[in-house]
Amino acid sequence: MTNKDARTPASMRTQAGGPADGPSNGEAGKSIGWHKAYIEGSRPDLRVPVRQVHLTNGQSVTLYDTSGPYTDPLVDTDVRRGLPPLREKWIIARGDTEEYAGRPVRPEDDGIKHTSPRGGLRNLDAVFPGRPRQPRRSRDGRAVTQLAYARRGEITPEMEFVALRENVSPEVVREEIAAGRAVLPANVNHPEIEPMIIGKRFLVKVNANIGNSAVTSSIEEEVEKMTWATRWGADTVMDLSTGRNIHTTREWVLRNSPVPIGTVPLYQALEKVDGKAEELTWEIYKDTVIEQAEQGVDYMTVHAGVRLAYVPLTANRKTGIVSRGGSIMAAWCLAHHKESFLYEHFEELCEILAAYDVTYSLGDGLRPGSIADANDEAQFAELRTLGELNRIARRFHVQTMIEGPGHVPMHKIKENIDLQQEICDEAPFYTLGPLTTDVAPAYDHITSGIGAAMIAWWGTAMLCYVTPKEHLGLPNRDDVKTGVITYKIAAHAADLAKGHPGAQEWDDALSDARFGFRWEDQFNLALDPDTAREFHDETLPAEPAKTAHFCSMCGPKFCSMKISQDIRREHGGTRAEIEEGMAQKSKEFAAAGNRVYLPIAD
Amino acid sequence: MTNKDARTPASMRTQAGGPADGPSNGEAGKSIGWHKAYIEGSRPDLRVPVRQVHLTNGQSVTLYDTSGPYTDPLVDTDVRRGLPPLREKWIIARGDTEEYAGRPVRPEDDGIKHTSPRGGLRNLDAVFPGRPRQPRRSRDGRAVTQLAYARRGEITPEMEFVALRENVSPEVVREEIAAGRAVLPANVNHPEIEPMIIGKRFLVKVNANIGNSAVTSSIEEEVEKMTWATRWGADTVMDLSTGRNIHTTREWVLRNSPVPIGTVPLYQALEKVDGKAEELTWEIYKDTVIEQAEQGVDYMTVHAGVRLAYVPLTANRKTGIVSRGGSIMAAWCLAHHKESFLYEHFEELCEILAAYDVTYSLGDGLRPGSIADANDEAQFAELRTLGELNRIARRFHVQTMIEGPGHVPMHKIKENIDLQQEICDEAPFYTLGPLTTDVAPAYDHITSGIGAAMIAWWGTAMLCYVTPKEHLGLPNRDDVKTGVITYKIAAHAADLAKGHPGAQEWDDALSDARFGFRWEDQFNLALDPDTAREFHDETLPAEPAKTAHFCSMCGPKFCSMKISQDIRREHGGTRAEIEEGMAQKSKEFAAAGNRVYLPIAD
Repeated sequence: MTNKDARTPASMRTQAGGPADGPSNGEAGKSIGWHKAYIEGSRPDLRVPVRQVHLTNGQSVTLYDTSGPYTDPLVDTDVRRGLPPLREKWIIARGDTEEYAGRPVRPEDDGIKHTSPRGGLRNLDAVFPGRPRQPRRSRDGRAVTQLAYARRGEITPEMEFVALRENVSPEVVREEIAAGRAVLPANVNHPEIEPMIIGKRFLVKVNANIGNSAVTSSIEEEVEKMTWATRWGADTVMDLSTGRNIHTTREWVLRNSPVPIGTVPLYQALEKVDGKAEELTWEIYKDTVIEQAEQGVDYMTVHAGVRLAYVPLTANRKTGIVSRGGSIMAAWCLAHHKESFLYEHFEELCEILAAYDVTYSLGDGLRPGSIADANDEAQFAELRTLGELNRIARRFHVQTMIEGPGHVPMHKIKENIDLQQEICDEAPFYTLGPLTTDVAPAYDHITSGIGAAMIAWWGTAMLCYVTPKEHLGLPNRDDVKTGVITYKIAAHAADLAKGHPGAQEWDDALSDARFGFRWEDQFNLALDPDTAREFHDETLPAEPAKTAHFCSMCGPKFCSMKISQDIRREHGGTRAEIEEGMAQKSKEFAAAGNRVYLPIAD
Repeated sequence: MTNKDARTPASMRTQAGGPADGPSNGEAGKSIGWHKAYIEGSRPDLRVPVRQVHLTNGQSVTLYDTSGPYTDPLVDTDVRRGLPPLREKWIIARGDTEEYAGRPVRPEDDGIKHTSPRGGLRNLDAVFPGRPRQPRRSRDGRAVTQLAYARRGEITPEMEFVALRENVSPEVVREEIAAGRAVLPANVNHPEIEPMIIGKRFLVKVNANIGNSAVTSSIEEEVEKMTWATRWGADTVMDLSTGRNIHTTREWVLRNSPVPIGTVPLYQALEKVDGKAEELTWEIYKDTVIEQAEQGVDYMTVHAGVRLAYVPLTANRKTGIVSRGGSIMAAWCLAHHKESFLYEHFEELCEILAAYDVTYSLGDGLRPGSIADANDEAQFAELRTLGELNRIARRFHVQTMIEGPGHVPMHKIKENIDLQQEICDEAPFYTLGPLTTDVAPAYDHITSGIGAAMIAWWGTAMLCYVTPKEHLGLPNRDDVKTGVITYKIAAHAADLAKGHPGAQEWDDALSDARFGFRWEDQFNLALDPDTAREFHDETLPAEPAKTAHFCSMCGPKFCSMKISQDIRREHGGTRAEIEEGMAQKSKEFAAAGNRVYLPIAD
């Protein structure tokens, strides 16, 4: 099973031309599209991937690329072996971590109760076959986090990598991480990732959720969804599996993921107690966190802000508690009439996360699940606690971001980001949408894409995608793609609105291609070249239409861009001439009074 | 061809239960869905259609309904006969209009150059077969517009109709129209419409564009698209046909449309001169406007703001002039080195429109077609002229709205609506999107849905939809539906953000159904019940799943809403008891200090 067969999306195979193909010479119908290129860093093993789009006019456009080695024909990938451990040498060179035996994998990690002679896994073929690697953790309990390094002024290779990727100076990256305004999720046990950064000074990021549920889906599907999501631009992926084979699914996903992987350890912990929330204990939870940290999970959602005292605040809500983790913790607190064990053991948890550089994603377990519940007392009470926990995490040098809602009408969105930034000392905000109305199930990628674009403009650092299946079922491959594309739109619209340096170059290149009727360039520059081309070809499939000065939307006589071009051509050979010619006419007109009607009082 | 066969979308037939069906008795699997109902006005012929959704808990929710008589099983519709002329008696009763012979229909109205013995139409079957009706216009050149009536204090049946529809007092409707802050497009020759209003004090409206192009599409398809668009919620429809049979296509559309129809007369005028912009004349244009006014077009886009002096301002643009009408007028101005004939004859045009109550939609021919061109000198120069023309139109009692962009990054959107409201004396703004980025062809319903929601929140009265085919081809039936649904989301999100009275009831009803696991109610309340049901059933198709307390997204153990409900059930029988129980625990906890960690300085 290599990336040349079923594992690789068709579009990846057909579009990725290797460097050998070279850029197009501009002849119609000979466009190559794009290829994978690398920006070289200060050392030979520091190469930042980019997507180089070759235009038919000889120019090229460089785009951020999340698709990993899969789109590089020179790299021989194999999902049974996993990706090359890009960061391994960097981690070892720091000398502050050590390999150790690690926690033995148990059948119950995969939800198996009765062990079989071979260890209990239902399907042994499913076990990840790649080279076994001992887990690694900090020596002597030191914090081996990017935050710790940044605070003492070190610029790690990971920081240099993201600086090149974001086109900023490494010092800016270090400063933002040190200040807690950005996180660089990079578990020492996930050396396969291409480092990326989440913070408001940087490009807005998008997370895609994958994961099986008890009802549907398999390991293979989840790995496929991960590569598929990153192919379309997902910056991180959360594996939210809850059924069987959680451990093994995660192993496959981690070993093959070029992007940071997030999880909610509580889900697996709950499986270990057969779904009975009240039987959860700190020990089971802690064991699960260590299990996942040893595998390489880069960030973990922890619902430590759902405190016993806040649960009654949700009693009058229209939709109660809609976070899975939040509802589990609320059930536990009430069942025991005790404070949350996550809250009570938060410092111990910090020590564990610091030893692997696992980043906190402090979960908003009390986020609103409907327009009616937005910005209520429960939600903001929890947010204040997240601010408190963020400060504790910083004491332990644990990188931290804060999760946000949810369902929020447009006029209440800004309060969310403003309050979060204030309460949480500008820690990165990571929001789910928000959905701006409840009335459109099957279109919640759109109801939430609206809110996501707005909250990202105002400072949210990462957006958790919502797919068309939200509230209705588990997303399939098409839903994952639609969710990612919608959120890339929201993220890029926010980058533009924030005036992010360089963001508009992409729009400009596409608009130039549009005005120049370079259809192939338009397709290749599009967020989704395949669908753009398919839509165009639905009505005008013939090859000459790829250079025609119209499409079927308006037809040849009514194409405004063609008429615009005709104007420029007919009224002068160059743009300067046209301007001069038109300016002359304009002067004549101005001299003639410049208006036909005089202002009239109503 | 009746609405019981191919003309009627399948979903319309299966969902529309007649009053005879009655509301569901609440038994699982027996949900009826919804039926058409009417709010009775002050006279027997004033009945405002609504969509009554019947919930399985015995309640019902009333929603605004644009689908016309087609969804009423008691009305026998037939597209060959047209809809009943609902407003005819109201118009006649006013006594200020008269029938007249009208302009003879000519072969060139349908783009036919050589007349045949039977009148020249290529396909005589295409001629609308319904009862011929003489056109009507004002007597003695009086203004027979809703604006004129409103100004002299009259509340017309049309105003009462929209007041009931919007759940406001008729006096509010009259005031808003009189002040020019709202328009009620209702040509005296389009008596078939169910009156609606466009203004910022009212629900945000959505327009859907249909129309053939020279490349594709037929009359039948366009009528089908119109009924299809209104079925999903389009408040008005613009027929932007540019190929052959423009006149006849429009006749079919008008006679069967329950919503106001808009056009761009310039398109047909250009067809009459074989697509040669320089051959256009005021006489040909005027003749076309009269032709369309006699047919019943309710509002017309007029690009009278594209003045000769502004054309040079577009010379340095990335994408020139992207409005079809704008580019045609710019070409004409430059070819003749003369001021626009639309601008020069604007007062005469006002006289014509006033005689039929055709509403102006003052076109933004110089709107930006790319992020780079947003809010530039050309765009705002034209806007100032539109403000001037709006004041002229008011002198003639012609209702007027103003068209807006286009492509605008999020941070530049608000300036558009603020400036338009200031310059155009709060005349309704009617925007196309705006698209918030250029990089996502095939997803421009989403790039623009984001901008549309925002600009509507800030005061735009009507949104012109954008379909996934924008920039790529002519939308088909699926694209029309996707465009309408996306824009209904944007419009409703804006209604919520504006705090429109009653808007949130819909969200609340759906969220209640969601929290109560009333799946059928969720589907029936959804903007698109069919797709919501289909997505749910993809993984859990069996009937018991329609009452299950989970879906395949999270599975039974991880459904947060189920856990929330369990909490409420286990900790008390009623909500009050739960609250009391939880409040007690909360007090105990508060008494114990209420926190585990003390605030810690970083």
